Amino acid sequence: MKKVITLFLLSSLFVYSQTEDEKMLNNIYETALTKSKCYDWLDYLSNTIGSRLSGSKSAALAVDYTKGELEKLGFDRVFLQEVMVPKWVRGEKEQAYIEIKGKKINVPICALGSSVATSKKGLKSNIIEVQGIDEMIEMGEDKVKGKIVFFNRPMTPIHIQTFRAYGGCIDQRSSGAREAAKLGAVGVIVRSMNLRLDDFPHTGNTNYGDLPREMYIPAAAISTNGANLLSDSLKENPNLEFYFKQSCETHADVLSYNVVGEIKGTENPNKIMVVGGHLDSWDLGDGSHDDGAGVVQSMEIASIFKNLGYKPKNTIRVVLFMNEENGNRGGEKYAELASEANENHIFALESDAGGFSPRGFSIDADEANFAKISNWKSLFEPYLIHYFAIGHTGVDIGPLQSKHIVKAGLQPDSQRYFDYHHAANDTFDAINKRELELGAATMASLLYLFDQHGID
Amino acid sequence: MKKVITLFLLSSLFVYSQTEDEKMLNNIYETALTKSKCYDWLDYLSNTIGSRLSGSKSAALAVDYTKGELEKLGFDRVFLQEVMVPKWVRGEKEQAYIEIKGKKINVPICALGSSVATSKKGLKSNIIEVQGIDEMIEMGEDKVKGKIVFFNRPMTPIHIQTFRAYGGCIDQRSSGAREAAKLGAVGVIVRSMNLRLDDFPHTGNTNYGDLPREMYIPAAAISTNGANLLSDSLKENPNLEFYFKQSCETHADVLSYNVVGEIKGTENPNKIMVVGGHLDSWDLGDGSHDDGAGVVQSMEIASIFKNLGYKPKNTIRVVLFMNEENGNRGGEKYAELASEANENHIFALESDAGGFSPRGFSIDADEANFAKISNWKSLFEPYLIHYFAIGHTGVDIGPLQSKHIVKAGLQPDSQRYFDYHHAANDTFDAINKRELELGAATMASLLYLFDQHGID
Repeated sequence: MKKVITLFLLSSLFVYSQTEDEKMLNNIYETALTKSKCYDWLDYLSNTIGSRLSGSKSAALAVDYTKGELEKLGFDRVFLQEVMVPKWVRGEKEQAYIEIKGKKINVPICALGSSVATSKKGLKSNIIEVQGIDEMIEMGEDKVKGKIVFFNRPMTPIHIQTFRAYGGCIDQRSSGAREAAKLGAVGVIVRSMNLRLDDFPHTGNTNYGDLPREMYIPAAAISTNGANLLSDSLKENPNLEFYFKQSCETHADVLSYNVVGEIKGTENPNKIMVVGGHLDSWDLGDGSHDDGAGVVQSMEIASIFKNLGYKPKNTIRVVLFMNEENGNRGGEKYAELASEANENHIFALESDAGGFSPRGFSIDADEANFAKISNWKSLFEPYLIHYFAIGHTGVDIGPLQSKHIVKAGLQPDSQRYFDYHHAANDTFDAINKRELELGAATMASLLYLFDQHGID
Repeated sequence: MKKVITLFLLSSLFVYSQTEDEKMLNNIYETALTKSKCYDWLDYLSNTIGSRLSGSKSAALAVDYTKGELEKLGFDRVFLQEVMVPKWVRGEKEQAYIEIKGKKINVPICALGSSVATSKKGLKSNIIEVQGIDEMIEMGEDKVKGKIVFFNRPMTPIHIQTFRAYGGCIDQRSSGAREAAKLGAVGVIVRSMNLRLDDFPHTGNTNYGDLPREMYIPAAAISTNGANLLSDSLKENPNLEFYFKQSCETHADVLSYNVVGEIKGTENPNKIMVVGGHLDSWDLGDGSHDDGAGVVQSMEIASIFKNLGYKPKNTIRVVLFMNEENGNRGGEKYAELASEANENHIFALESDAGGFSPRGFSIDADEANFAKISNWKSLFEPYLIHYFAIGHTGVDIGPLQSKHIVKAGLQPDSQRYFDYHHAANDTFDAINKRELELGAATMASLLYLFDQHGID
């Protein structure tokens, strides 16, 4: 009999708890869809402040603006964390053309982040196409020396999750210049990481690693249409020349900040749950998807909880990281300070995959915690959130280590992401208000469930 | 022992069959993402032919074009079904303004489909705002007579599936003019069915029902920004006047066509599976999402099967229906001819909810068949297709009745759909190639599974 009663109690407890959770998630989504501020915040970040490259004036404005907005949201404290960040400046608009027998055909390029400039006159040379670093190394110094190397391996269309296709190409952008320089190349042109055929060059960081500075060679991205034209032209005229000119510069590091808002936990103030995105962006668009969306969604969570009068048991920190794009200094600084202060981080959630319709979460956890989170799936079903899988969660929260930390990354629908990523068309008009709000609600829901039911 | 062997055989059969299905779905998605023609077809339909309102020259061009493309795809036969369709013509661009003490403020409107014109000079009158037909009826003839009625109930943002919000508003557009006319109103202005605040008026059909023709009153949609402005202005000046002018006309019915491509089933040629979308569109944009996407996705299925050398057991008909938007004459004609010929339709699948990233299917089936389809869910998981629920499937396949027919409607992500629906911005640039292809692959996969495993 006792067993029966226990079972009964347990099951009614379960039903009660389910119902409370269901009600709370419903309230979270309704609040996000009717009272959210995230779209207006993003409008300001994107259209009034604009792109926010680390070390720029507008990045500093974004720090001031978001700090001010966080202060209006009733956090227990809002503070800045000092971070020294690189300052790379694009300079004048880049120029490039293909020259075939004296005839010049312009193509759209942009310097890769951290790249050096060409000489003031620009750089003209023969160009060789490769499908990747390995192919170039196999060719050897003889064929590479004195030439521009054109890395043209496209994102493969067959992956349903486009980040997988991105992962399959990115070494060309991040390491292509370094490896080409070792073989005596004079410059590098990289096919834009874009699944679409269009005229936007997509920037992103390149990394010279431990090459001596005098060996650095200029690197630029070419639009996908431009890459196809160049490839076709090379098939007809292997000896064509490619010209490009860019005047980018790396300045001394600059003082910048992570912006942090903290709500003290009512029961476990020393257990910390981080939620964030990155404040900095590339300089070509206005960084609405990457990662203005993640910034305002993270802020929105605090707004939703305030609206609902929800006091978290554990401490919540909304962290707007600086410098994800070309250094991750903000993510590293946050982790360093957390470690120095012996803080106990139990959860970290990042949104840095665009402001599109949310599908679920990638999760970094041990088996038991992953199973626990997966058990919450049914609670998300009414909101069409279905994706819970082990995977990469976020660059900014990457360095954060703690004994039992669970990490998660919001996974929006990824089909359109690389149409905009790091390009001039990553702008506010590509954002749908409801999709942005649904992402914030989905994050708030996971944070709430985590706060209520903790980890094992 | 025998039992064990039977179980073993059954389970290995099951494993085999799963593996074959998994392989086939993988091939379908890869083919769609690498060899599809749907994006190019839609480019032609949208950018070369343009909007395809029933009875228009461009609708006729779309019949010719799609028939020609189907003929290239190796169908056993391609044929047209004659359908008489209404011909409504918008005429000159509509004009509207709010007049407050002699000051005129222009607002964006468009005539509702099937509406009558105003007089040539236009119509100016006092205007009263209501939240719906019931509220208007409650006001009574006294307050309505001689006035324009402004139906301003917005789509509610809280529904995750935006079609539900649409369903909660649509009576204002479809029946508002008829009901207002009965109370002596002189015109009707309806808030656009759009969840976004913008300047696009969204058309759609209005239905005078059995009102005598002399009682018809002109009806137009106003953009959501315009509706808010009008509502605010009315709060300040309840006596303001509203002016609008439209010159739309209904002509005599016109001969048009459903376009049908048929692949004869190898095992059950008399069992028919229909897949389709509608060829006609509203006249303001180019009908890329509504429903050019559904048309080219349906065509793509045949292309995918041809590419893979897949010969269906049951007969497949790709049906491009005419006149979904303002009459559903094509859907009715198809059903009528099927019934006359005593055809056995076992399955009908429609795509008419936009070309966005697919999430799953709404299904109209009995419990056993719904359970069977739901069992295929795990096969769709790698493609992030998760939504299988009983619901409305499609207007065109609605009239089709057969003893054991199962119907399904592709359900793409619905968040952005009403940003474009029936408006001037429903254009090709709002289509993402991969999303369109993934929708086609998702439809082809369901059709394949249905063909292989049938219904109970």
